[in-house]
Amino acid sequence: MDKEIELLHETELFKDLHAEQITEVLSIAREVSFSEGEIIVREGDIGDTMYIILEGSVDVVKSLVMDGMDEDETTGKNKVFTRLSAKDHAVFGEIALLEEFRRTATIKAVTDCVLYEIRKDDFLKLAEWDYALGYRILLNLSRIVSARLRKADEDTIKLTTVLSFILKEI
Amino acid sequence: MDKEIELLHETELFKDLHAEQITEVLSIAREVSFSEGEIIVREGDIGDTMYIILEGSVDVVKSLVMDGMDEDETTGKNKVFTRLSAKDHAVFGEIALLEEFRRTATIKAVTDCVLYEIRKDDFLKLAEWDYALGYRILLNLSRIVSARLRKADEDTIKLTTVLSFILKEI
Repeated sequence: MDKEIELLHETELFKDLHAEQITEVLSIAREVSFSEGEIIVREGDIGDTMYIILEGSVDVVKSLVMDGMDEDETTGKNKVFTRLSAKDHAVFGEIALLEEFRRTATIKAVTDCVLYEIRKDDFLKLAEWDYALGYRILLNLSRIVSARLRKADEDTIKLTTVLSFILKEI
Repeated sequence: MDKEIELLHETELFKDLHAEQITEVLSIAREVSFSEGEIIVREGDIGDTMYIILEGSVDVVKSLVMDGMDEDETTGKNKVFTRLSAKDHAVFGEIALLEEFRRTATIKAVTDCVLYEIRKDDFLKLAEWDYALGYRILLNLSRIVSARLRKADEDTIKLTTVLSFILKEI
C-alpha cells in the first residue's frame, strides 16, 4: 500500500493529501489493465472515469481540426501527441470527476498498462462524506483546469493573431 | 440581508448553498462602488479578487490578438465585448479565488456600479474553516472553469480548421 500512497502523492491531483486521505481515495480506485495498442479513452465519447497510470505508457492523441477532416483516429496528420507514463505520475480524464464530459483526447496504450480507474459517482460520494478530502482534491483539480484554460486562451489568441496577419496579406 | 441571499443564490457559483452558507460568504464580501467609465479589472494585471454585480452594468472586453497589435485597451477593433448586469446575476474574476492569475479580460463600468468584492485569502480561510462550504463552491467553480475550457478547446479546433483550409489555398 505504501508504494501506491507514494505514487498518488506525486500526482498534481492528490499531492497534498494526508496518507489516510489517500487511503480513502485508493478505496474507490479499481485496478484495470489494457494491452499494448488498446484504446483506453476515445475522443468524443462521454466519460465518467479518470485514470492514474501505475505501469506502462500511453499516448494522448488530440485532433487539431474538426471531425471528418482526418482519416484515422490515431494516426492522422492533424493530430498532436503527448506520451505519458507511470514515472510522470500521470493522471488523465480527471475532468470526468466533475460531470460527464465528452473526452477531448484519445488515450491509447503504448505498452501493456496497469491503471487505477476512479468513477465520478464514487468520487462525489466520498467527497460528500469527507468534505475536507473533497475540498482538497477539488482545489487541486480546479487549479489544474484553470491552468489549462489559461493555456487554451493563449493558444486562441496566438491563432487569431496568425489568422489576422494572413487575412491582411491575401 | 434576504435580498443579498436571494441574489447570490441565483449565481452559478453559489447556487446550491444553504442560506446560512450564503451568510458566511456575505461575511467576507465587501461592498465596493465604481463610477461610469471606470476600469474595475484590467486585462493582464495580476488579481486576487472576484466580483458579484449588485447594481449596474459592466462591459467585458477581451483581446483577440496579441499585445501591441491594438491601439486602445477598450476600444480597439480586435476585441470582443460582452455586457453583464445585476439582473444576469453576474459574477466575474472568480478564477482569482483559486490563485493569483493574470486577468484575461478588462472589466469596465458602463453605469455607476455597486459590487461585492471577495478576496482569495478570505475565501480560502473560510473554506478551510467550513469544508462543506468550500467543497460546494469549488465544485461549482470547477464546473464553470471546465465548461469554459471545453468552449476554448472548441474555439481552438475551429481556428485551426480555418487556418488549415486557408493554408491549403495559398
